[in-house]
Amino acid sequence: MKKNEIEDTGLSSKFQTRTQRLIGRDGSFNVKKTGIGRFESFNLYHYLINISWTRFFILALLFYIVINLAFTVFYVIAGPEHLGIEKNLGSLHSFMNSFFFSAQTLTTVGFGRVNPQNAWTNIIATLEAGIGLMVFAVATGLLYGRFSRPATNMMFSRSAIFAKWGDNQRAFQFRVANAFTTEMMDAEIQVIASWLEPGEDGNEIRKFYALKLEYAKIVFFPTVWTVNHVIDENSPLFGKTLDDMIKDEAEFLILFKAYDDTFTQTVHARFSYRHDELVWGAKFKRVILIDEKGKSFVSLDKMSELEKVEI
Amino acid sequence: MKKNEIEDTGLSSKFQTRTQRLIGRDGSFNVKKTGIGRFESFNLYHYLINISWTRFFILALLFYIVINLAFTVFYVIAGPEHLGIEKNLGSLHSFMNSFFFSAQTLTTVGFGRVNPQNAWTNIIATLEAGIGLMVFAVATGLLYGRFSRPATNMMFSRSAIFAKWGDNQRAFQFRVANAFTTEMMDAEIQVIASWLEPGEDGNEIRKFYALKLEYAKIVFFPTVWTVNHVIDENSPLFGKTLDDMIKDEAEFLILFKAYDDTFTQTVHARFSYRHDELVWGAKFKRVILIDEKGKSFVSLDKMSELEKVEI
Amino acid sequence: MKKNEIEDTGLSSKFQTRTQRLIGRDGSFNVKKTGIGRFESFNLYHYLINISWTRFFILALLFYIVINLAFTVFYVIAGPEHLGIEKNLGSLHSFMNSFFFSAQTLTTVGFGRVNPQNAWTNIIATLEAGIGLMVFAVATGLLYGRFSRPATNMMFSRSAIFAKWGDNQRAFQFRVANAFTTEMMDAEIQVIASWLEPGEDGNEIRKFYALKLEYAKIVFFPTVWTVNHVIDENSPLFGKTLDDMIKDEAEFLILFKAYDDTFTQTVHARFSYRHDELVWGAKFKRVILIDEKGKSFVSLDKMSELEKVEI
Amino acid sequence: MKKNEIEDTGLSSKFQTRTQRLIGRDGSFNVKKTGIGRFESFNLYHYLINISWTRFFILALLFYIVINLAFTVFYVIAGPEHLGIEKNLGSLHSFMNSFFFSAQTLTTVGFGRVNPQNAWTNIIATLEAGIGLMVFAVATGLLYGRFSRPATNMMFSRSAIFAKWGDNQRAFQFRVANAFTTEMMDAEIQVIASWLEPGEDGNEIRKFYALKLEYAKIVFFPTVWTVNHVIDENSPLFGKTLDDMIKDEAEFLILFKAYDDTFTQTVHARFSYRHDELVWGAKFKRVILIDEKGKSFVSLDKMSELEKVEI
Repeated sequence: MKKNEIEDTGLSSKFQTRTQRLIGRDGSFNVKKTGIGRFESFNLYHYLINISWTRFFILALLFYIVINLAFTVFYVIAGPEHLGIEKNLGSLHSFMNSFFFSAQTLTTVGFGRVNPQNAWTNIIATLEAGIGLMVFAVATGLLYGRFSRPATNMMFSRSAIFAKWGDNQRAFQFRVANAFTTEMMDAEIQVIASWLEPGEDGNEIRKFYALKLEYAKIVFFPTVWTVNHVIDENSPLFGKTLDDMIKDEAEFLILFKAYDDTFTQTVHARFSYRHDELVWGAKFKRVILIDEKGKSFVSLDKMSELEKVEI
Repeated sequence: MKKNEIEDTGLSSKFQTRTQRLIGRDGSFNVKKTGIGRFESFNLYHYLINISWTRFFILALLFYIVINLAFTVFYVIAGPEHLGIEKNLGSLHSFMNSFFFSAQTLTTVGFGRVNPQNAWTNIIATLEAGIGLMVFAVATGLLYGRFSRPATNMMFSRSAIFAKWGDNQRAFQFRVANAFTTEMMDAEIQVIASWLEPGEDGNEIRKFYALKLEYAKIVFFPTVWTVNHVIDENSPLFGKTLDDMIKDEAEFLILFKAYDDTFTQTVHARFSYRHDELVWGAKFKRVILIDEKGKSFVSLDKMSELEKVEI
Repeated sequence: MKKNEIEDTGLSSKFQTRTQRLIGRDGSFNVKKTGIGRFESFNLYHYLINISWTRFFILALLFYIVINLAFTVFYVIAGPEHLGIEKNLGSLHSFMNSFFFSAQTLTTVGFGRVNPQNAWTNIIATLEAGIGLMVFAVATGLLYGRFSRPATNMMFSRSAIFAKWGDNQRAFQFRVANAFTTEMMDAEIQVIASWLEPGEDGNEIRKFYALKLEYAKIVFFPTVWTVNHVIDENSPLFGKTLDDMIKDEAEFLILFKAYDDTFTQTVHARFSYRHDELVWGAKFKRVILIDEKGKSFVSLDKMSELEKVEI
Repeated sequence: MKKNEIEDTGLSSKFQTRTQRLIGRDGSFNVKKTGIGRFESFNLYHYLINISWTRFFILALLFYIVINLAFTVFYVIAGPEHLGIEKNLGSLHSFMNSFFFSAQTLTTVGFGRVNPQNAWTNIIATLEAGIGLMVFAVATGLLYGRFSRPATNMMFSRSAIFAKWGDNQRAFQFRVANAFTTEMMDAEIQVIASWLEPGEDGNEIRKFYALKLEYAKIVFFPTVWTVNHVIDENSPLFGKTLDDMIKDEAEFLILFKAYDDTFTQTVHARFSYRHDELVWGAKFKRVILIDEKGKSFVSLDKMSELEKVEI
């Protein structure tokens, strides 16, 4: 095995022949799993936490209507006249008013004009009010779970670059910044390079190599971090050209972690650079500038800007 | 002490003579504790978080009925006529309507047809509404605690195998995968081998050995991880045959940890392979296959499939 | 500085001359702080989370009464007749019914017999209902914060002992077990020995030494862990007798950490053994016994039992 | 690169020429970011968690009024007479009573004197009660998120000092204490020294150096921790005078972490000492004193007191 090679990173050396990106630009793994039933792989909390807000509210509204309809049926069976609903105004009137009464009970608003007046309607209403509170308890938990979930808004530079390093070396570099106004500390980066190599049986197999970073961990992270891997003779990138990396479908996988002071929790972000997002012979422009008053500031819109450099 | 031996792993070298599995297939420890009172070892929150949903809802319903009955008694003592309940319809009618009024107050639905009209009924209702909100606050917390609890659905291969490694070595291997659709990172595995050995006093005692893994930690974990321990001369498994392991009641204990992106938390899973779940001379079949469009995918139903290999 | 000495452990080498225990039996530090104002050192959430349940419920009840009284005053000023309360029944009647109405509004039970009928009473009721929901939201959070707080119920052996180790060595040992039925993993122990030594200026000063443990970390922790420090020539205990330790007011400070599967969180516990809780020349009796069916079990009530041993 | 130099700490070597403090006295980074849109860098949860309580309650009140006004408009359109509001008392009377009814519905207080009596008013009320519960669910979550957020109240000594160490060495020291009554464990400190140095291109650039601490981690932290960096020949401070540090705009950045037993979580704090907060030739006075009963106690108001020492 070569230096720094990682044999099985969970992405598997046999995974992905060509044309597929390993990590999507949104940070999700581009992996399809089969062979497990829908129910086995499904977790309701996972689902309700991960769906969009639009979908969440539509599901909540549907659930609200369905549970009210279910109780409406019980009230109609028990007799809407026992809720004080006038019988001679027709069954649609009875049904609708039973539905509204159900909603008033489920939400515990209980106006009282329509109200349960015999044993059965009282029993149903007693259950419905109890269930209503449980339902809204679950909704409270889900809403809290959704919006208190640590969110990140990490910016990665558009390209990863091959820069000049020292007198006659090269470095692999990219930039990362926190687009939120939160304060981050103890930030960590792991980078894994991956490309196809001829396997023993003649087939191409995907290999993974950990890249040693100049700084893999920093204490404070308020500005822009230029992550730097020096391509010395120990580097798996040593001797590789950009053409090699394009030919071998190279992809650089990135895992970012930091402690976020607002969420008081460690947050994670993933990213990857594919062979077509690499730039050979460049350096990043300065992002820390001085304003007219002599105060320095960070210009995040310049974090992807490059200057050409002969390497 | 031999290489890699762990003397006291908390499972204790004196624990378990024969026939008992250390870790059940559900991940729980097969350990009975005595000598502490029921109340000392009982924690209500532990209990309510760990019981099944069915049991949880039955307990919630019972609690709802009991607390309403308790307040019903107070209202009956205070006089249901002060709630506006007609007295001449009998004590069953009074009792039931007091119960329904209690439920309307506890849930804060408060329809108002029946309502407190003197000081005592008002005082009871004031307390009940306050207590009701506290009770449902606790229920909200418990429900949130239950469904937001990090769940895992880890799949382990049916057998652990002894595979060929290199030219003339062997390896101990098993597979693990995440059956949920969540994304996991920074996955870690610890494996402890355990078997009986003759002790100093002639009795068999159980010994524990940490197995050094080729990769004990991986950065990304979207597919299937084939955990691999090479049986070199430093391995406690070196020179052991399958018959030895059956005779000595071997068991391989596994602790899995990973960061789960949906729960934004580290999740844990335990598992064990007993001597009758070991296969000598095998290799795992490929789980990463190519579909008709040339895209690779992971076939989780094949993760336990083996091919016979001479070792 | 001597081997393993820790100069400033946060407990301070100048702290505690004699007679005072550093860590109480309940795990709290026996340290009085002065020089900061009451308000600076006070955090309401800390307070409400740490007080006993009795005190918490008394405070909640008082708060409920006080907030209702405050709104009652507003209703009385606005005129209880606008709530539909009969004026000619006297001011006590008005006050009490305003109070009950306030409670019905704060809890959102809203029976409606008494209800706001002019602008001012409506405005007050609108505010009160909104505030009521916020108050109960805070109560919900506090209750959840209280009962979901990781609790531990660690048992430590009554004494720490000096046992025989190998042929002519000694070991410092104590035992720890989880009295709850929860499952713990990745348990860690840190032990710091502390005693008085003559300082440079002739005064006694307290010194702290980290004790190297045979196993400071174990993977699984379902039974009883006998924590073991071998007193070899590198140990700060080397050459010390029990009399020395009594004379020098020795105390052994213990910090325990483990991952608890029910709280899905790392839990902590502190403990200490003072010189009068040390036993010289002993060994712990077995806690893992075999029942009549040949199954082994852990007898936690035996974890402090000792046998005399010549050392 | 010099010993212990950190090239890019996320604060960037090119950041800050002169006159600007890197970390404010409140622990926030003194960094202005530009180039990202307001919406991209904005996270509603971040905002609502971080604003002051006053602002939070004003926003909550405004939101309460606005959402009620919105529903009032719907009721006015649907016809307030269908809520049982007398039409002939004028449109202000209708509007106000619709508003009060809306508040009664949103908060689920539902007195019932005013109540929905036709289909449209019932539909609006049904939605409003449901939305009201969701709104208060979000409020519950936010309130819980706000007050359960780990708070720290760390005291740092007013100055960092250069003290005598051993016979002819110096040490850089400062003090830290927990002003809360909570108990902290596993406290960690990281210190980064920073100053301007002439860069290659003649411009001054800011350099960062990690300071090696005598103890960077302590197990128990109940009193005052005097953090100590010995200025030996490996220290970046070796040979530097106070004048050098003033001239080079030195700043010492501090990151503190500890496990807090009340929040059952790791808490963080940041601080910095600037060149004008350094004292050359001093030692800290004792903070652990003995009271009249011979019991020692910690006097936190003395933690910044210094004695002059020739160094």
